[in-house]
Amino acid sequence: MRAIPRIGITLGDPAGIGPEIIVKGLSQVSALPPAVYVLFGSGRVLELEQRALNLVLPLKAWTPSNSSPGPGLYIHDMELPRVKADKGHPSAEGGRASFEYFSKAVEEAEKQTVTAIVTAPVSKQAWSQAGVNWRGHTEYLARTYAGAIMAFWSEPLKVALLSHHLSLRDALSRVKAEILEVFFQTLEQSLVRRTSRRFQFLVAGLNPHAGEGGLMGDEEEEILTAVRRARAAGMNIEGPFPPDTVFRRALGCPEVMVVALYHDQGLIPFKLVAFKTGVNFTLGLPFVRTSPDHGTAYDIASRRVADPTSFLNAVRLAVELA
Amino acid sequence: MRAIPRIGITLGDPAGIGPEIIVKGLSQVSALPPAVYVLFGSGRVLELEQRALNLVLPLKAWTPSNSSPGPGLYIHDMELPRVKADKGHPSAEGGRASFEYFSKAVEEAEKQTVTAIVTAPVSKQAWSQAGVNWRGHTEYLARTYAGAIMAFWSEPLKVALLSHHLSLRDALSRVKAEILEVFFQTLEQSLVRRTSRRFQFLVAGLNPHAGEGGLMGDEEEEILTAVRRARAAGMNIEGPFPPDTVFRRALGCPEVMVVALYHDQGLIPFKLVAFKTGVNFTLGLPFVRTSPDHGTAYDIASRRVADPTSFLNAVRLAVELA
Repeated sequence: MRAIPRIGITLGDPAGIGPEIIVKGLSQVSALPPAVYVLFGSGRVLELEQRALNLVLPLKAWTPSNSSPGPGLYIHDMELPRVKADKGHPSAEGGRASFEYFSKAVEEAEKQTVTAIVTAPVSKQAWSQAGVNWRGHTEYLARTYAGAIMAFWSEPLKVALLSHHLSLRDALSRVKAEILEVFFQTLEQSLVRRTSRRFQFLVAGLNPHAGEGGLMGDEEEEILTAVRRARAAGMNIEGPFPPDTVFRRALGCPEVMVVALYHDQGLIPFKLVAFKTGVNFTLGLPFVRTSPDHGTAYDIASRRVADPTSFLNAVRLAVELA
Repeated sequence: MRAIPRIGITLGDPAGIGPEIIVKGLSQVSALPPAVYVLFGSGRVLELEQRALNLVLPLKAWTPSNSSPGPGLYIHDMELPRVKADKGHPSAEGGRASFEYFSKAVEEAEKQTVTAIVTAPVSKQAWSQAGVNWRGHTEYLARTYAGAIMAFWSEPLKVALLSHHLSLRDALSRVKAEILEVFFQTLEQSLVRRTSRRFQFLVAGLNPHAGEGGLMGDEEEEILTAVRRARAAGMNIEGPFPPDTVFRRALGCPEVMVVALYHDQGLIPFKLVAFKTGVNFTLGLPFVRTSPDHGTAYDIASRRVADPTSFLNAVRLAVELA
C-alpha cells in the first residue's frame, strides 16, 4: 500500500495573501486528496486570518516524525517575536518569519518527515530587508541542490526555465552548450522520477526567429549542440524553435514541456494561458516542492479578495508527485 | 468627401504563401471595404496561383496616378526574368523579385499614388541570397524613416516593439532613456495622426519582475526616466511593469498598447492571443503599411491550405488607417 503523503505548507509572508489563500484553501480540506497537511507558520497569524475570514481550520499540533498521524490538518507552530499580521507592506520581521517557516519545512523534507512542500508567497524585498540574501525559494534550494530547476505546470502549458531570477543580461550568458546539457539531463531524470509520463521537450531559441540561420545572434548553435547530445542520450527533445511560435505549438499538449531560456520567455506565455490556475514547481530536489504562481500581492492583501485556486492546484500537484 | 483609399498590395516571395493568401483574400473583394486595390507583382505568378486555386481575380491594369480609377482590383505587372513559381524554398530570384515588388510599392506610396501598402511575406534568407541586405520590410523602411516602429494590432492586444530584428544581446543595449524618449514621441505622434483614438501605453520592464527595485538589472531606471519625461510631455504612459503580467493587464482593453522592449517580449504574447488574426503594421512613416503577422510558411506553401484571415485583417486595417 502506498503511504499517505505528508505535505508541508509554509505560511509565506504574513503581510501578503499567503495566510488568506491557505485558510480559504484548507477550509475545503475534504475536497482535497487525503493527506497529512502540516502548516509551518505562526499559529497567531493563522488565528487572526481565520477570524478575518470567518473560517475555522481544524488544526492539530504536529510532531515531526516519519510515521503518519492520519490524514488531516496539522500545525507546526513557529511563533517568532515581533511578527505583525498587518497587511500590505514588506518588513524585515515578515521577511525573517517567512524565511524561517520555509527553511524549517525544507529541513523536515530533507529528514523525510514531510514528503513534499507547498510554499505560499514570500517577498524578495522583505527577505532582503531581513538580511536573507536569496532571491526566492528556488534560489535557496539551489544553494544545496545546484541543479534545482524552476518549472511551471498547468493543464494547457508546461514550462521549465533554464534560469530565473537573473537580470536578462546575466541570463543570456547562461546559454551555453555545457550548461544546457546538464540542465536537460536533470530535467528528464527528475520528471521520470516524479511522474509516470514521458515528456517531449521543445526548446525555445534565444534570438528572434531562433537567430534565422545566424543572421541575428549565434547562441542557437550552443542550443543545437546540447539538443543533439541529449537526443543521442535518448531524450525526446527538439529545438531550438522560434520563441514566438514554440508556445503556441506546445499549447494543449499535456505531455509536452517547453524549455524557456530566461524568466520572462517562459512566464509571459505561462501567465497568459494559466492565469490564476498555474503552479510553480521545483525539479532536481530529493523532495517535491510546489507553489502558487503568484506573489504576495501586497496591494490586495488587506481586502481579503485573493483567489486560492492556484494554491489549491499547487497542493494537488504536490500530492500527485509526492 | 473623403477620397477613396488606394491600397498597394505586394505579392511577397513567389515561393511562399503570399500569392495564395492574396488570391484567396481578394477573391472575396466584395466583402472588403471599397478601395482601389493595386497588386505589385508578377502577373504570371498570379495567373498560375489562380489556376491552382481555381479562383479568378478580375484584375485590370494600373497606371500610377494620384487620381482614383474607381474601386476595384488592379495590377502593376512586374515581370522579372527567371522568377519561378515553384513553392517551398528560398531562392535568390524569389528574394530579388519580392524586394522589387516591395520597393516599387514604397516608391509609389512616397509619391502618394497609393496611400497605404499591405505587404505579403518575404523571406529574409531569400533577400540575403539576392544580395538584399535588409532583414525585412521594416528595416528597409527604417533606412529612410529612422523612427520606423514595428507594431502589432489585434482586437485583444496591441503591441509596439522598441527593436525587432536584432539579436537579443543587441536589443538589450537599445534600452536607454534617450532612445526610449524619441521612440515614445514617434509612437504617440504617428498614432494620433492615423487614428482618432487616444491610446494608453503600458511599458514592459526588461528584467524579471521589472528588476525588483534594482535587485536584478538596472535598465528599469532608464525606462523610468523616459516614461517620466513622456508623461511630463502629456503622454498617457506608465511603467515599467513586470513583463510577465503587463500583457495580461492590457488584454481586452482596445485603447491600450503595450510597449515591448525586444522582438519576442512582444511577439510571444501577441502570437498566443492573436493567432492567425493579428496584423503587423509600421508606424512613423508618411504612409500606412500593414502586413499579415506570419512568414512565407514555405513548409505548407505547396499544399494550398494557407489561411488568409491575417492578410484580410491587414487589408482592413490599412483601409481604416489610410
